[in-house]
Amino acid sequence: MFDLTFLGTSASAPTVHRGLSSAVVSFREHRFIIDCGEGTQRQLLTAGLGFKRLDKILITHGHLDHILGLGGLVSTMARWELMERIDVYAGGFALDRVQRLFGVVFGPGELPMHIEYHRLEPGIFFEDEHLEIEAFPVEHRGPDCYGFLFSERPRRPFLAEQAEALGVPVGPVRRQLVAGEAVTLPDGRTIQPDDVLGPSAPRTRLAFIGDLARTRPLVERIQDVDALVVEATYLDQDRDMAQRFGHLTAAEAARLARRAGVGRLILTHISRRYPGRLVLEEAQTIFPEVVVANDFDHFQVKRAG
Amino acid sequence: MFDLTFLGTSASAPTVHRGLSSAVVSFREHRFIIDCGEGTQRQLLTAGLGFKRLDKILITHGHLDHILGLGGLVSTMARWELMERIDVYAGGFALDRVQRLFGVVFGPGELPMHIEYHRLEPGIFFEDEHLEIEAFPVEHRGPDCYGFLFSERPRRPFLAEQAEALGVPVGPVRRQLVAGEAVTLPDGRTIQPDDVLGPSAPRTRLAFIGDLARTRPLVERIQDVDALVVEATYLDQDRDMAQRFGHLTAAEAARLARRAGVGRLILTHISRRYPGRLVLEEAQTIFPEVVVANDFDHFQVKRAG
Repeated sequence: MFDLTFLGTSASAPTVHRGLSSAVVSFREHRFIIDCGEGTQRQLLTAGLGFKRLDKILITHGHLDHILGLGGLVSTMARWELMERIDVYAGGFALDRVQRLFGVVFGPGELPMHIEYHRLEPGIFFEDEHLEIEAFPVEHRGPDCYGFLFSERPRRPFLAEQAEALGVPVGPVRRQLVAGEAVTLPDGRTIQPDDVLGPSAPRTRLAFIGDLARTRPLVERIQDVDALVVEATYLDQDRDMAQRFGHLTAAEAARLARRAGVGRLILTHISRRYPGRLVLEEAQTIFPEVVVANDFDHFQVKRAG
Repeated sequence: MFDLTFLGTSASAPTVHRGLSSAVVSFREHRFIIDCGEGTQRQLLTAGLGFKRLDKILITHGHLDHILGLGGLVSTMARWELMERIDVYAGGFALDRVQRLFGVVFGPGELPMHIEYHRLEPGIFFEDEHLEIEAFPVEHRGPDCYGFLFSERPRRPFLAEQAEALGVPVGPVRRQLVAGEAVTLPDGRTIQPDDVLGPSAPRTRLAFIGDLARTRPLVERIQDVDALVVEATYLDQDRDMAQRFGHLTAAEAARLARRAGVGRLILTHISRRYPGRLVLEEAQTIFPEVVVANDFDHFQVKRAG
């Protein structure tokens, strides 16, 4: 299960009620911050989330309203929170810009923290026993924009009864089988993982996309995810402008969700042109399982059924 | 009369209730923003002040918590508010840093606005018929830190009865006298400004100082101002730390106000270490006419009596 909290949901410029783009995704012991518009450090405080273990920063693209808060956030993390290391994951263009921003923010030798920069390429860039995160390219203005697909690692349940029947002893041998390795028992028989592991349990998946110009290339990529987060900067009445600036209308976002058969659609990056209600109404007529995120909204994303 | 609104009153890092340093001073048609910590553009919206005519930016010094909001503010001013020009006034160190920040924020040719940079030296850097603003050097960590003294221009009332008695005709001749020039009448007599102008009316003065390490050199400079805004980052119990980082304790700020005989002391740049109440209590025992500014607090500064 993923915990998702929005810190900022406004496009381009903040409003009284919406801060600039940022969200936190938590999964087990991991916490990821996705994008970091101006004011994010304060939104974190207001959300009551704190800075602890918030050491992995994912950037969808390098536009100002998604990265300008990094200067203050990292400065505070280093000076007040005594964090020693953060990892920043971003496409090349965004990563360069972030590094230049830090170059202004921190003089030579002034940064009392290690920053590890990861230049994203399409593919899995983070994985452990329980989680993998894949970066997939998306189209928006400028190069190197990415969406993120968070997936629980496939887990096959251990069939204890079957193992018992086959005489597989309790202990390291069973752990080997769970890890996918065949084992040979003292009596010479070889036991395959398939003999004692059930079919993969369904796994929760969350697709998080920032700004987006074209939905068609993504339908297959995000097919059946449990939740899709994506921008809805414009309404259909302004689709010319949406196209011109490489953004989606609420209707386009909803059609993407419908085609991909996602569990739930969460819209963000709302323009100050429109009240959120209109964005919701436009999307709802096409895809009913939709919400427009507000700052500090919290979602639990889990496998339906 | 000066209108003073605080946009952010926190030192170093924001808190839930305090944004980073920024304030707006208004006088007649002019609006000045003093310092611009991260999040200032949003605080402006929340304060209901808007961006209109907010085209003069004064920076006390170049530390991050006083300048990082400029990237987002200027970006929004140019893109959403269609402002065509702003003037930035700062000491050399801060000005260089601001320019480098804008270099990251705006790619070459990307800034659809003219920014006029004014490198402050001690002395009057802004004046018109009614107002002058003087920059005076202050000590803090790093070079080129300034305080600002806002003064109404001295105005001597025109003594119409006296002018009548002396036979000074109505019209341009009187305007010359008001402007301080002697005039020769058709009958050959020379009239001096002193003959028809009363003594200077008392003028309102506001001293705005950012971070500050030493108060003694300033006592004379700000003598008798109607209001003094200055930092109070520490309490006296932590005066070693205050000294180490070039800041004041609330007690030191209060002693400065007392020595200079200011009308009113307004403390800002409050550390998240202490509740504002303790800062106020410490200062009050030394100088009763003191307040601790909160975000969005508004003050009218006028000549007492």
